[in-house]
This record gives sequence, C-alpha cells and structure tokens, in this order.
Amino acid sequence: MMPEIQRIGNSPRWSDVVIHAGVARWVEVANDLTTDATSQVHQILNQIDETLVQIGSDRTRLLQITIYVASQDVVPILNEHWDSWVPQGHAPVRACMHVGLGKNCLVEMLITAAVS
Amino acid sequence: MMPEIQRIGNSPRWSDVVIHAGVARWVEVANDLTTDATSQVHQILNQIDETLVQIGSDRTRLLQITIYVASQDVVPILNEHWDSWVPQGHAPVRACMHVGLGKNCLVEMLITAAVS
Amino acid sequence: MMPEIQRIGNSPRWSDVVIHAGVARWVEVANDLTTDATSQVHQILNQIDETLVQIGSDRTRLLQITIYVASQDVVPILNEHWDSWVPQGHAPVRACMHVGLGKNCLVEMLITAAVS
Repeated sequence: MMPEIQRIGNSPRWSDVVIHAGVARWVEVANDLTTDATSQVHQILNQIDETLVQIGSDRTRLLQITIYVASQDVVPILNEHWDSWVPQGHAPVRACMHVGLGKNCLVEMLITAAVS
Repeated sequence: MMPEIQRIGNSPRWSDVVIHAGVARWVEVANDLTTDATSQVHQILNQIDETLVQIGSDRTRLLQITIYVASQDVVPILNEHWDSWVPQGHAPVRACMHVGLGKNCLVEMLITAAVS
Repeated sequence: MMPEIQRIGNSPRWSDVVIHAGVARWVEVANDLTTDATSQVHQILNQIDETLVQIGSDRTRLLQITIYVASQDVVPILNEHWDSWVPQGHAPVRACMHVGLGKNCLVEMLITAAVS
C-alpha cells in the first residue's frame, strides 16, 4: 500500500518533493546560482523535467506553476524559454511576480503536478 | 469518464483554469488593466464569479485566495469590495501581500475552489 | 457523513482553516504583531502546532509551507527556529521570499497539511 505522504530529498530544512493524494508539490531554484537569468531559467525548466521523470509524471500533467522573479527584466527571458517548453494544449495555470529572493537567485518556481 | 485533468482556456502560455481531483486552480487579473484599483478589484471579483459558474462551482466553495497587490494603497479598496463579496460563513483562506506585478496590473488573485 | 468543505474560524474576511479532500490550508501571522522577528517566528510555529492539533494532524504531515518575510534580515532568524521545529525526515516543501506585508507583520506563512 502507498504511504499517505511520499517525500523525496533529505535536506533537514525542506523536502525536495512532497506527494499526497495524487498531487506533487515542489520548489525549483537553479542548481548553479552563479549564472545569469537565461541560464537560471534554462536550468530550472530542465530540473522540472528531471523531477517529473523521477515522480512518474510529465509536462502535460503540470497543474500550476507560480514564478517568482528577482527583477522584472527576467520576465521576457523567462517567457522566451517558457513558451517553447510548455506543451501546447496542456499548459498549467501560471502566476508570475517580482519579489525579493535569496542571494544570486533570479528565479524561483513553485510547482504542482498530477501523479498517479 | 472524466479525464484526469481538465483545462479551460487556450493560451499557449498558460491555461485559464486547471481542474484536478475536485480542485480548480486559476489566476485572475482584470481584463481591462487601463483602469484604477477600484475597477480592477471589481472586475476580478466579477471574473471569479464568471469562472465559478463556468466550472460548476460557487462562492461558497472557494478554498483559498492569495491576493497580490502592486501597492499597499490597494488593500483598503480591496477589503471594501471583498467584504461584501465573500459569503458569510463560507470565506476562503486568504493571504494578501505587496509584490511587483506586470505593467498596469494593480491586483492579481490566485484562486483554489472545490468542484464536483 | 463529512461535509465536502470544513471551515474553522468565523472572521467575515477569511476562514482560519479550510479543509477539503484531505488537505487543510491556512495562513498564520503572529497573534502579537508588536513583537520582534524572533518572537513572531516563534509565535507562528507555535500557532501552527496548535492548528495541527485542532485539525487532527501533526508536524509530520505538513505538505508545503510558503514563507513571506518583510525583510531578508528575518531569514536567518527564521531558519534558526525552523530547523529545530521541522521533524527530520518529514520536512514540507518550502519556499521563502521577501514581499511587502501588513503593518508590523514581519513574517507570514501559508500552510498546507494532510488530514484524515
């Protein structure tokens, strides 16, 4: 029997992914934060793909992505990558806003996806 | 049989509404962003009502609304409209914060509601 | 039979907690906002514990906590309290960002937890 809650990742401060009742929730920031916005967006979208594989889901089952940017200048860069990444006809709900993020972090995404 | 995920709206960048496991998620910004805060709040609450009808839900089944404002000055205007809009005894969970939004956008809401 | 949606708290503006489909959602700000960041963080984590008891859940069933701080200076204070509060091996997903909050409010948390 499946446990009620599955957690992936062993940081003491947070889990990388939490799955409950067919919904996975997680946060992505670029693994390499020394890079520019283009690289950080590119890294994050790749990392989402990797996590989707890991949890047995895929891009067509994304429910919602909330995107936090450290500057409005990041938004056009984000959109350029985003538009070719999102599967047409299966786009998630998306909100995007400018907030203060951690040191060197230019983009952070909060993701919700369906899993079986 | 119901599909696992229902998506409403056909923008390539996002879906207007995503429904999964009896929960609808969506984002509202005012359709007309050339207007002042009073109008934008009024528009958004009307748009939520329209979406609720569209998905077969109603105001008493709102679960959570996160409200992003582009200025703290919007909050009293928001509250005035909000308080007469929220069904007494059935209010959603609400968080409200000041962030940077897109051009001319003074309010954005992230909504979660129950659907059958 | 359980109602579809359970709401706790009777403010006209929001519910304190909303429970639907085995998931509880709620927001915490410190009950006493005249205090410093250390106290506000401490209060909020205690308040989460109280709410978890009230809804028949516990710290090991937290799914996601989004943390909003009014200043980046709050983050190290938050982390110090957080790290000893989070149950090892059962940490929620966590995002933390700097936004504008209400008057005197230094920290606000948006919580999702599993309930039976």
